[in-house]
Amino acid sequence: MKVIIAGTGAMGATYGSMLKKVGNDVKFLDLWQDNIDAINKKGIEFINLGKKEILEASAYRPSEVHDTADLIIVFTKSMQLKEMLSDIKHLLSDKTCVLCLLNGLGHIDTLKEFVKPENILMGVTVLTAGMKGPGVFEVTNYGNTEIQNITEAGKERALKVVETINNSGLPSVYSSDILFSIWRKACINGTMNACCTLLDCNMRKLGKVNHCRELLGTIVEEFSAVAEKEGVNLNVKEITDLVCWYTTEEFRGVDHYPSMHQDLIQKNRKTEIDYLNGYVSKKGKEYGINTKFCDLITILIHGRESVLIGEGK
Amino acid sequence: MKVIIAGTGAMGATYGSMLKKVGNDVKFLDLWQDNIDAINKKGIEFINLGKKEILEASAYRPSEVHDTADLIIVFTKSMQLKEMLSDIKHLLSDKTCVLCLLNGLGHIDTLKEFVKPENILMGVTVLTAGMKGPGVFEVTNYGNTEIQNITEAGKERALKVVETINNSGLPSVYSSDILFSIWRKACINGTMNACCTLLDCNMRKLGKVNHCRELLGTIVEEFSAVAEKEGVNLNVKEITDLVCWYTTEEFRGVDHYPSMHQDLIQKNRKTEIDYLNGYVSKKGKEYGINTKFCDLITILIHGRESVLIGEGK
Repeated sequence: MKVIIAGTGAMGATYGSMLKKVGNDVKFLDLWQDNIDAINKKGIEFINLGKKEILEASAYRPSEVHDTADLIIVFTKSMQLKEMLSDIKHLLSDKTCVLCLLNGLGHIDTLKEFVKPENILMGVTVLTAGMKGPGVFEVTNYGNTEIQNITEAGKERALKVVETINNSGLPSVYSSDILFSIWRKACINGTMNACCTLLDCNMRKLGKVNHCRELLGTIVEEFSAVAEKEGVNLNVKEITDLVCWYTTEEFRGVDHYPSMHQDLIQKNRKTEIDYLNGYVSKKGKEYGINTKFCDLITILIHGRESVLIGEGK
Repeated sequence: MKVIIAGTGAMGATYGSMLKKVGNDVKFLDLWQDNIDAINKKGIEFINLGKKEILEASAYRPSEVHDTADLIIVFTKSMQLKEMLSDIKHLLSDKTCVLCLLNGLGHIDTLKEFVKPENILMGVTVLTAGMKGPGVFEVTNYGNTEIQNITEAGKERALKVVETINNSGLPSVYSSDILFSIWRKACINGTMNACCTLLDCNMRKLGKVNHCRELLGTIVEEFSAVAEKEGVNLNVKEITDLVCWYTTEEFRGVDHYPSMHQDLIQKNRKTEIDYLNGYVSKKGKEYGINTKFCDLITILIHGRESVLIGEGK
């Protein structure tokens, strides 16, 4: 299969490398010149569950590539998705599937601006990887990938992509309800990421805060109310149990700081809050639903961005 | 007038010293032994608008004093008021007025548990003072004091206390609507204190945050809705304009960090949130009013206390 990775961060590099190793024709796109140069000069370097390996690869800026592909996997930060889609517009043929595995909500609407619905595949992944520097990546956990078409016409392509990814060694399944999975994961991120960032703590400490369940449960209620308007049924009790579980001993990563904390507090970078609680807040206003916790969380996270990064109004 | 200062922090020391200097019989009570010892040994030391002065004074633990007074001024942290009232129970005669100038909401209910309503005087002060160490205080601004009785029967006593404080050199007026003044000040503290603490910033930076007016205005709306149930009419637009003004160039203290920020972030001490947004949140639930911003702010401030001071559930 001809594959283009649109965004060669840790996730894109991992998916692309696995697909390339089993014989697919993979091109890596990125906007960061240092990263492109490093990959072209030294290949993609992986620390793969602790073991170093190098894969020869070619990386390009989107404008340098002219041949289309069967599959484009977009792997940007949420706020860069639109710009990336615009940059690769010339690579989107009638038969090019675009697979989006980004965290967060609202991406389908953005994809639809550029891609025909039958070519859009949505997914959720729990693979975890990090970037160590230009061209150097680390995979810490090969989690599952779920994928589904968003219109009936896309089903055959989705099944083919699932098979291709599975054959590359990344466990992958066809999802019967990807919207549910996306919202479910958004609830986890919309509670853990937002609250640990605002409280400047890891998940274990979040779990020790008074009224923690009220805090997380109210956020889940608001996500659920908006999800319902969009045809997705979340069981508030079950999802609240799930997100609370992430703050307990039983969760292996309980001492970790979620990615939003790393982005904002540790690296002083803008967060993806607009694609989590910010999406629920915005849609809540459109649908006339009270989403005050998400409203305030979104204002406060942007407020922290403004204080730490210095970009206010 | 025989006066007892119940709580000799910066505010208590200032009011007590001014009253003592013009001939009132003033006793200073406190629970911190180092402070009591320092005052008894070296007197009360003031840095008075930059100028040092020392006033000979006697300080005691509440249990060491047995004579009642005409006026007791309570000057504790909000969360210590009840304990102090319990400690000075034996000093409360039928004729002892208790004046409470504490910031925050809910103190009248606490006072009523110990003091007859006609003996309760409520007030608001904008005097600012700080403690430099045991027995050492600093006054930075001699602001106005407003005082009023809470039942008609207490009016004469209130007028007498206003006169006495005025005569000591502290500008003081009889208020025609002290509840309004208390709520108005609570709105200022419930916005500036809470938001600057959560965002870890001063008032100038708060003003630069996107949606700042929505943030402050929603908090004021919630305070106003609860105040209305308690017979106090706040004009949301006016109060929102006022609290927003504190984040502008025009406000001389715009670069200051509010006291809650100093308490929690700088000194890792518990905050008075339960007497500001926490009061509105609690009463909102009782009255069936949506006070979600105050609910979340209260949970988050207590969460930060738990993370920074380590006292979770």
